[in-house]
Amino acid sequence: MSSYCVATYRCHDDKADFHKKAQSIAVGLTVGSWTELPSAKQKQMEKHLGQVLSVEVTEPTGSAVDLANGTAERYADIRIAYPDINFSADIPALLVTVFGKLSMDGKVKLIDLQFSPSFLDGFGGPKFGIAGVRELLGVHDRPLLMSIFKSVVGHDLEELSHQFYGQAAGGVDLIKDDEILFENPLTPIEKRVEACMEAAGRAQAVTGQKLLYAVNVTGPASKLADQAKRAIDAGANALLFNVLAYGFDTLRELSADPDINVPIAAHPALSGALYPSPHYGISASVLLGKLMRLSGADLVLFPSPYGSVVMPKAENMAIRHALVTNNLQQDYVYRAPEQSGTDTYPILRGSFPVPSAGIHPGLVPWIIRDFGTEVVVNAGGGIHGHPLGTAAGGQAFRQAIDAVMNGVSLAEYAESHPELGAAIERWGAKE
Amino acid sequence: MSSYCVATYRCHDDKADFHKKAQSIAVGLTVGSWTELPSAKQKQMEKHLGQVLSVEVTEPTGSAVDLANGTAERYADIRIAYPDINFSADIPALLVTVFGKLSMDGKVKLIDLQFSPSFLDGFGGPKFGIAGVRELLGVHDRPLLMSIFKSVVGHDLEELSHQFYGQAAGGVDLIKDDEILFENPLTPIEKRVEACMEAAGRAQAVTGQKLLYAVNVTGPASKLADQAKRAIDAGANALLFNVLAYGFDTLRELSADPDINVPIAAHPALSGALYPSPHYGISASVLLGKLMRLSGADLVLFPSPYGSVVMPKAENMAIRHALVTNNLQQDYVYRAPEQSGTDTYPILRGSFPVPSAGIHPGLVPWIIRDFGTEVVVNAGGGIHGHPLGTAAGGQAFRQAIDAVMNGVSLAEYAESHPELGAAIERWGAKE
Repeated sequence: MSSYCVATYRCHDDKADFHKKAQSIAVGLTVGSWTELPSAKQKQMEKHLGQVLSVEVTEPTGSAVDLANGTAERYADIRIAYPDINFSADIPALLVTVFGKLSMDGKVKLIDLQFSPSFLDGFGGPKFGIAGVRELLGVHDRPLLMSIFKSVVGHDLEELSHQFYGQAAGGVDLIKDDEILFENPLTPIEKRVEACMEAAGRAQAVTGQKLLYAVNVTGPASKLADQAKRAIDAGANALLFNVLAYGFDTLRELSADPDINVPIAAHPALSGALYPSPHYGISASVLLGKLMRLSGADLVLFPSPYGSVVMPKAENMAIRHALVTNNLQQDYVYRAPEQSGTDTYPILRGSFPVPSAGIHPGLVPWIIRDFGTEVVVNAGGGIHGHPLGTAAGGQAFRQAIDAVMNGVSLAEYAESHPELGAAIERWGAKE
Repeated sequence: MSSYCVATYRCHDDKADFHKKAQSIAVGLTVGSWTELPSAKQKQMEKHLGQVLSVEVTEPTGSAVDLANGTAERYADIRIAYPDINFSADIPALLVTVFGKLSMDGKVKLIDLQFSPSFLDGFGGPKFGIAGVRELLGVHDRPLLMSIFKSVVGHDLEELSHQFYGQAAGGVDLIKDDEILFENPLTPIEKRVEACMEAAGRAQAVTGQKLLYAVNVTGPASKLADQAKRAIDAGANALLFNVLAYGFDTLRELSADPDINVPIAAHPALSGALYPSPHYGISASVLLGKLMRLSGADLVLFPSPYGSVVMPKAENMAIRHALVTNNLQQDYVYRAPEQSGTDTYPILRGSFPVPSAGIHPGLVPWIIRDFGTEVVVNAGGGIHGHPLGTAAGGQAFRQAIDAVMNGVSLAEYAESHPELGAAIERWGAKE
């Protein structure tokens, strides 16, 4: 019984025969040649041959709508099924097979991946996932709130601890390191964890709530796991990781390591080199959605459609879907027609979507409208820049979340909640 | 004394104030905020602050030439110096610092990197390099010749060994695995190495020349080094590695490992997701040039400007320059104005450029004209597709190289060399 993973490509070309191109991809990236093989050899090689599933050509109409939508160019969406037997069950092998050479061959973007049940079998997915992170925090009935340090480079432990306390005192659920904080003499990782977790303890005595601190794991690739374990030994209860700088398999290994028993937040640093072009690269929903979840990210940050670093909302929704859907069969899993539909396959835990950048309390209704409640509201400037201080910044977000969860408008809730009121006065509210 | 690495960005924007944007990058990716800091704090933080070195704005002229060259859009090249003190001396930290968040912030492409002497100090570069690979092969007076298996997926050891012998018998210097050959039951890496090196020995008895076989190292990230060592124990005398699937630091670690004492050929698989867009990503000269050499690739494959998978020639030349230049100071190294110019810094060995795809013997004069003799001529179809067979395919290439090295035209040389003659008849010659 054959088993396939499926790649979907968007190819732009003014005049290509896309059906021919699809055939040449299916053959070229698998058995190499086909029509010239003797039929006995074809029979032997058939299980290795890529299959063209569909070719959907979109011709430009030249209409104003096309021009406005950037769909004025001729393109085709091509789906190809690749036999699992051709590659080992790891992300580098899959990506190199379906997009290694092809990525260099004209205007072609990898816009979707579907995994076979047997390929998926090799992946544990997030160790905690959405439910596990909620369990650690004891919060089940509302979106979570994450905050980001204001500035970290050049600051010492005392300053970091001070910033940390201010954020924690406002009632945030998670605090993440800045992704550009590396090993440095002022705030080495173990000392940093100790100082911040001490501040977390002091804040908990006031707020009565738990908090996860995602410390940035950095440095030589083969030492990442050791560094993570040292941080955990020092008290770290979450990790931050710049996945694209190291590759998805390194995230998978960190996530699968039984001694790394804390949630991992995946940072999207460098991903903008890959997803924004309409002609080249890998779509955001594959890169920051499916592959992050598959590799075991418990939380995934990505640019929100609301703020300064903007990703189109449709792409945000596609990432969200890839991270949280339980309808894995339709979107994640491809079954070849001859496969029975009754065998089981693993359902990966969901990853928390964390739309980031430019978030202030007035956007909370939009975030919850777009993402539902399985979302982490993440803010930096929107917390530190609060007119009444950092702690008030966190409180304003928590109040905004409470208002939405209770079906009360922010404007009304702000009347009895001065921190939210001050935030709305500063940044406005979109309801 | 401050020490800086420098990133150059090309930013496209119809109306941005590029000088303001440059300042906001320099501050935003380092200390976070600046003008609002008290002056005592500024003094303390100054050594962490990014510096704008230059902003060159190109306004569109609307001319036909601009339109034809794709330079009809407004853009600026912005150079920013980042203090080394802000990041650890590794490629992930440098890339995340200079392009982590920024990659997601509009139309911005990373088009160059210059390293400080102290950053470079942490890198050994290629263990063999151009001279070392020549030494292993005992070939000093001509371009090298590499060949690629015709098809590998679904073939067994006997078939691979047969293909290998055909290539080796033609007098090629290096044979590389296909990058899509992963661990598989038909040709597991140790058995494959044994079978191919046995074929290499038989061929050497005929040709009298040495040969390197670059076997593909694949699988889980943390097991790559072990796999490489097992392959070497089984007789492998070179490695192939899909660098982009694992990240540059993993290549650096393989290269720096004292037990991995064979040359490493870097494959460009997936790089097309990053370099071709004019608006996004990382330029080919950084990705397949400077970072590959810095990470220790002894040979670097990239799409040639001649064949089917086309990269513009100017980009090929920029990659070549990054791989082979000894004029490191100008292109690789940035010295801050206050730094003395007399201290020493490491000169990395050069990496062999391997322009690939669509190469046939008739292109050899062009390759040598463009690349000089420090180049590896690399062919697949141009060897296997030779009318007189695979061995004749290799011979035709060796003859083409000999012709050019002796200043004889291919047409003239072909008169007394039937293999070259048949190749030219099949594919033509560009002289």
